[in-house]
Amino acid sequence: MSEYDDATRLESGDDPTLRHGTFHEQGMIGNAVNGGLVMATALRALGEHLVADPTETTEHVDPVVLSAYFMTASQPGPFSVATEVMRCGRKLSTGQMTIHQDGDDGQPVERMRAIGSFGNLTDLEVQRQAAPPDLPPPDRCLSAEQAPPDFLANAKFLERLDLRLDPATAGWALGKPSMRGVMRGWLRLRDGREPDTTMLMMALDALPPVAFDLGLLGWTPTLEFTGHIRRRPAPGWLRVSLSSETLGGGMMEEDAMIWDSAGNLVAQSRQLCGVRMPR
Amino acid sequence: MSEYDDATRLESGDDPTLRHGTFHEQGMIGNAVNGGLVMATALRALGEHLVADPTETTEHVDPVVLSAYFMTASQPGPFSVATEVMRCGRKLSTGQMTIHQDGDDGQPVERMRAIGSFGNLTDLEVQRQAAPPDLPPPDRCLSAEQAPPDFLANAKFLERLDLRLDPATAGWALGKPSMRGVMRGWLRLRDGREPDTTMLMMALDALPPVAFDLGLLGWTPTLEFTGHIRRRPAPGWLRVSLSSETLGGGMMEEDAMIWDSAGNLVAQSRQLCGVRMPR
Repeated sequence: MSEYDDATRLESGDDPTLRHGTFHEQGMIGNAVNGGLVMATALRALGEHLVADPTETTEHVDPVVLSAYFMTASQPGPFSVATEVMRCGRKLSTGQMTIHQDGDDGQPVERMRAIGSFGNLTDLEVQRQAAPPDLPPPDRCLSAEQAPPDFLANAKFLERLDLRLDPATAGWALGKPSMRGVMRGWLRLRDGREPDTTMLMMALDALPPVAFDLGLLGWTPTLEFTGHIRRRPAPGWLRVSLSSETLGGGMMEEDAMIWDSAGNLVAQSRQLCGVRMPR
Repeated sequence: MSEYDDATRLESGDDPTLRHGTFHEQGMIGNAVNGGLVMATALRALGEHLVADPTETTEHVDPVVLSAYFMTASQPGPFSVATEVMRCGRKLSTGQMTIHQDGDDGQPVERMRAIGSFGNLTDLEVQRQAAPPDLPPPDRCLSAEQAPPDFLANAKFLERLDLRLDPATAGWALGKPSMRGVMRGWLRLRDGREPDTTMLMMALDALPPVAFDLGLLGWTPTLEFTGHIRRRPAPGWLRVSLSSETLGGGMMEEDAMIWDSAGNLVAQSRQLCGVRMPR
């Protein structure tokens, strides 16, 4: 079993709407478990619920869209994920996912609530899509090992990834952000597991925050994240591109796009993050 | 009371989590009540719930982000909207909204479920934002009255709006779509009511579908819609810009941006729609 599959593994019992798992230290980024990992785990729970439900079609195996709201920071340790099937249609099955962990007082605290739809993304025709960005080959990009040790100490999650940032958008690591609000790079899982549609939702939230390229090096907590998965990815490297146009009132948006090794757009997302402005 | 305020008006009783209202024929677009109107109604319900709740801060009066999933088409007639406050934080209060109507068999049918957050958008500083598009003045743009009568017959909702489309992006009305996937125009409420942050969420979903500019004139039902409200709008005309980059597998995304009369970006959204390809 791959490291990624192990990190999102769930146990289920008699209740078809409830599953349990454990977040690991290796999923930490800043003071929280990476939101992408939390979302992939929630999707896996809803996917397992749909497959197990005899009234649902079993062909809706690909997450197509997910909207997640993060209320408190997930921590290493046990969690529960509750799922509800809201509607099973011909093309999409839609449901809700809620992740709780016990707080310091032993009472459950809601970490994340999401709504999402599953469908079937086999062999889709492409009519229109944005072209992938030109990137230097992976061996001419900056890998996470070259990031400042202070940064890596609080970003264990990055060690699970093989991430190669385009040097043109990695100036922030040397104190010289481009101030354009862009970040681009190659991404694959460190353990060699190939991408699938659920993993793409994690990959949309896996790069360092695009805020770094605006000289904002603090934590940018995700308030809301919506991702669209548009195709099953071909095996191999993913190309990820982040951008942001709007910053104000202590909030910014971060847009992500992912292309697979065949050059097709496979996923896109937008998130609203909190941001603390330097004084 | 303005027509818009009347259309989103709610009655409440003893249960602080339940409100009732009525969708009107005037809100119809195609075979459903306009999704923007449904979302504005849901936000109004959560806003009223937050204000009435003594444990919540009463300063969170502006919707900041909403993610809505449309399961069945809303119809003219009575509806109920149930709200749940999920978390009240210092900067944002987050809750869930669910709209039901009775189906033909008298059983409640879920129309829409959404999660959203309220905050306070008074006097925000702008650090970065996209510039508004250049548009011909409203009196040189195409008003809805100039649209084909066949189209208007199924778009009563458009009569509630004063919408002026840039002729450069309205070729579809004459059978000559630009095929670029863009639509731009001026928007205000027909009854003269000035925009506010809740009305902006409706305005993000008020224009004809951007699919029309790709020659796809069928109905494009919204599957998922997420809007970010970034500022309180100044009074006057809104400038709305739609675009789409990705089309395939019977789905497309539609992005919307809105600037107020002061030239500030006040709202942006992305939705995933179903689309039927011509044979």
